[in-house]
Amino acid sequence: MLPKGVSEYLLAHRRRHLADLKELLRIASVANVPHPANQCRRCADWLSDRLRSMGLDSQVVETGGMPAVLARADVGPERPRLLIYGHYDVQPPDPLNEWNSDPFDPQVRDGFLYARGASDDKGQLFAHLMAIEAWLKADGALPVNLTVFLEGEEEIGSPALEGFMAAGADRLAADAAVVSDSGFFADNLPSVTYALRGLVYMELTVTGPRQDLHSGINGGMVTNPLNALASMVAAMHDDSGRVTIGGFYDDVAELTAAERAAWASLPFDAEAYALSLGLESLAGGEAGLDALERRWARPALDCHGIVGGYTAGGAKTVIPARATAKLSARLVAGQNPAKIVEGFRQFAADRAPRGVKANIDVLAEGRPVMLATDSAAMTAARDALAEAFGRSPAMVRCGASIPVVELIQRLLGLDAVLMGFGLPDDNLHGPNERLALKQLWGGSTAAASFYARLGQLSRRSE
Amino acid sequence: MLPKGVSEYLLAHRRRHLADLKELLRIASVANVPHPANQCRRCADWLSDRLRSMGLDSQVVETGGMPAVLARADVGPERPRLLIYGHYDVQPPDPLNEWNSDPFDPQVRDGFLYARGASDDKGQLFAHLMAIEAWLKADGALPVNLTVFLEGEEEIGSPALEGFMAAGADRLAADAAVVSDSGFFADNLPSVTYALRGLVYMELTVTGPRQDLHSGINGGMVTNPLNALASMVAAMHDDSGRVTIGGFYDDVAELTAAERAAWASLPFDAEAYALSLGLESLAGGEAGLDALERRWARPALDCHGIVGGYTAGGAKTVIPARATAKLSARLVAGQNPAKIVEGFRQFAADRAPRGVKANIDVLAEGRPVMLATDSAAMTAARDALAEAFGRSPAMVRCGASIPVVELIQRLLGLDAVLMGFGLPDDNLHGPNERLALKQLWGGSTAAASFYARLGQLSRRSE
Repeated sequence: MLPKGVSEYLLAHRRRHLADLKELLRIASVANVPHPANQCRRCADWLSDRLRSMGLDSQVVETGGMPAVLARADVGPERPRLLIYGHYDVQPPDPLNEWNSDPFDPQVRDGFLYARGASDDKGQLFAHLMAIEAWLKADGALPVNLTVFLEGEEEIGSPALEGFMAAGADRLAADAAVVSDSGFFADNLPSVTYALRGLVYMELTVTGPRQDLHSGINGGMVTNPLNALASMVAAMHDDSGRVTIGGFYDDVAELTAAERAAWASLPFDAEAYALSLGLESLAGGEAGLDALERRWARPALDCHGIVGGYTAGGAKTVIPARATAKLSARLVAGQNPAKIVEGFRQFAADRAPRGVKANIDVLAEGRPVMLATDSAAMTAARDALAEAFGRSPAMVRCGASIPVVELIQRLLGLDAVLMGFGLPDDNLHGPNERLALKQLWGGSTAAASFYARLGQLSRRSE
Repeated sequence: MLPKGVSEYLLAHRRRHLADLKELLRIASVANVPHPANQCRRCADWLSDRLRSMGLDSQVVETGGMPAVLARADVGPERPRLLIYGHYDVQPPDPLNEWNSDPFDPQVRDGFLYARGASDDKGQLFAHLMAIEAWLKADGALPVNLTVFLEGEEEIGSPALEGFMAAGADRLAADAAVVSDSGFFADNLPSVTYALRGLVYMELTVTGPRQDLHSGINGGMVTNPLNALASMVAAMHDDSGRVTIGGFYDDVAELTAAERAAWASLPFDAEAYALSLGLESLAGGEAGLDALERRWARPALDCHGIVGGYTAGGAKTVIPARATAKLSARLVAGQNPAKIVEGFRQFAADRAPRGVKANIDVLAEGRPVMLATDSAAMTAARDALAEAFGRSPAMVRCGASIPVVELIQRLLGLDAVLMGFGLPDDNLHGPNERLALKQLWGGSTAAASFYARLGQLSRRSE
């Protein structure tokens, strides 16, 4: 399906493409680092310059938060338009001491490219830039109209994205959308993702005395905000691993028998996966449910960090004035973030121990997404993945959240195709994040093939 | 009782003494800051030089940990020997942003000297240096043989102190000992402390996956070490505020009726005290017990900080590989730290949630202390406080720990006199630590009077 020239171009330019991706990965575009330390704008400029040099009409656009990149290539009104989404921001690199090489000094070792953002999502969006370049240089023209949209706040929950997209939906209007920010279910098993969990990210703060107190003088007399916080976080789960927040499970869509059967045939060995993480078992979440069901079809609640008191080395005997837990609830189809937040607020109001106050602040919200699995674009993506990787893809869900997918659905009226190239052991969000080079090469081939297949479809509006 | 010359000398030199104390407070002698950043040795040198310049035979001595200062002044074998203990190390100054002035740039405002260590314990040990100087300069000689011992690790639990004292007990041998590292029960109510709580400082570490994980991909499947830690910390108390660690209360000496009656007559208004801390009530500890009983006569368990996961600003969706809670148990007369630690180890072994491992590390241990209240030295201290502050002192306990007091009792065979000059609102261990200047002036007078009264007693060995 893919013209030989395009394939050969990609093969011939691997060394340079890798060097260019490394340059992109060297930019420490951590969205939640306060100005002016963050390099998001530099990263947006780099990407926009690159798209422009490839011949697209590209610009850095303001969103109210970190800037985005918006680029267009028009081949003619008879062809459909594809919206390509990626995000150039990355997770913070800490804990730094657990990286084997500098997270912002990309290194290739044993066929893997190690760097923060290698897989999530710079490497994956770069596969699209390689595919676009290959079409333009080897074939002279793109097979489809393109809009490339690269945001810079995905890792902090895309707080400005909804406003930006709602205000300028026509700039993003398209006949199909592709998001490459997911991965293979297993090595050598390409996958298309049809559902994502949503997210509510909150801070629960417990406030006690006006200032930090000496625990000898006041211990046993004053309610300790850290102990109180721990007791509240603990009370959010019952002994069977179920979340106790009021109404938490009310709207959870039950897993269908068809999906349950399909998932049972996936090559997933829970014990082997646990071992790969250094664990004896996958003991998190609700007791009695299969691991994939807990990961994909059930909501979950995790604590990400507790701020307050003394956390440096050695001993300090302090009762902290306040303590904050960073928490997120992953939501599945049917659940409404606003209702979940309300449950947490009620929990904070009802369950603060005597002598302290508790409060919930919401940092980010994203709705869960369920996508149609039978669209023409979805078929094109499956065929493109099969062409590039030599195997028909599995249909999978994903436990993570990509806020833009829900916004594309709700604001643009499109079910995006989630065609990702990562592998399960890419160490996303953790130390030693990496991308297998074979996934970069295959991913760019799949992207290029996908454009060609889409170009042959009729336009949505026809 | 105090010679007029000595009193007048103290009055005449207040300005210089304050300037000198400020110089001492400028040295950031935080014992738990790793070398070479910590200034403990500089502080020990400063104090030893000062004692030598006053005429004492002084040296900085190695302890295996932070150095100590050991100084002697001999007036003759017919007089008893007094051991004066103080500690020059201070608590870490964080949270720095809550200080109204730099913790290591002492400032006088409204009759209070603000600095880290102003009350705990540099200001109090300095009152003794003022008293010694006054006797030597105004009277020509000390009224008692002195051994001054200033350690540099009190705030981290005096880890090297027992070994040092056990190895050289003869260097510290004395007929009486005084420790000025406590305070008045209330403003204008001098107090002598006859009991201290002990301390076990531990870190509970929960270990899960090999490295930090993405909470979208693994949330609900993997036991989250931070959630597990919170549930374990929460499970350490029951709903009535009692500690659930096995055997925790087994050896707690019950409060006597006499003490209960005496405490009831102390000017303690729990509601007013709560308000002074910015709290509505003193709701910590065991339900149904008076606040002073909970503070002084009951053990307590506090969490001081939780390390692990993401604690900077904003959102990061990580399941941390491990999480650590800093915890301390305050112990009262009868309790044995080793037995308490054993209870925590058993708890860690029994109560780790499925999918994680838990472990206890002990950072510091100190036994509780109960002192005789009817010794001649105790009477001398009460009389000296009455002379200096114009009011007969109250007999009180203290919820905090001063490891040296138990070591003086066990290794030197002496019940130290705890004659402290702090006030309840000195903000020990917290931001804006301070010392009222009137307490510095009165404290130096009380110390000088105490030396004179002790000098008139017969030697213990006679």
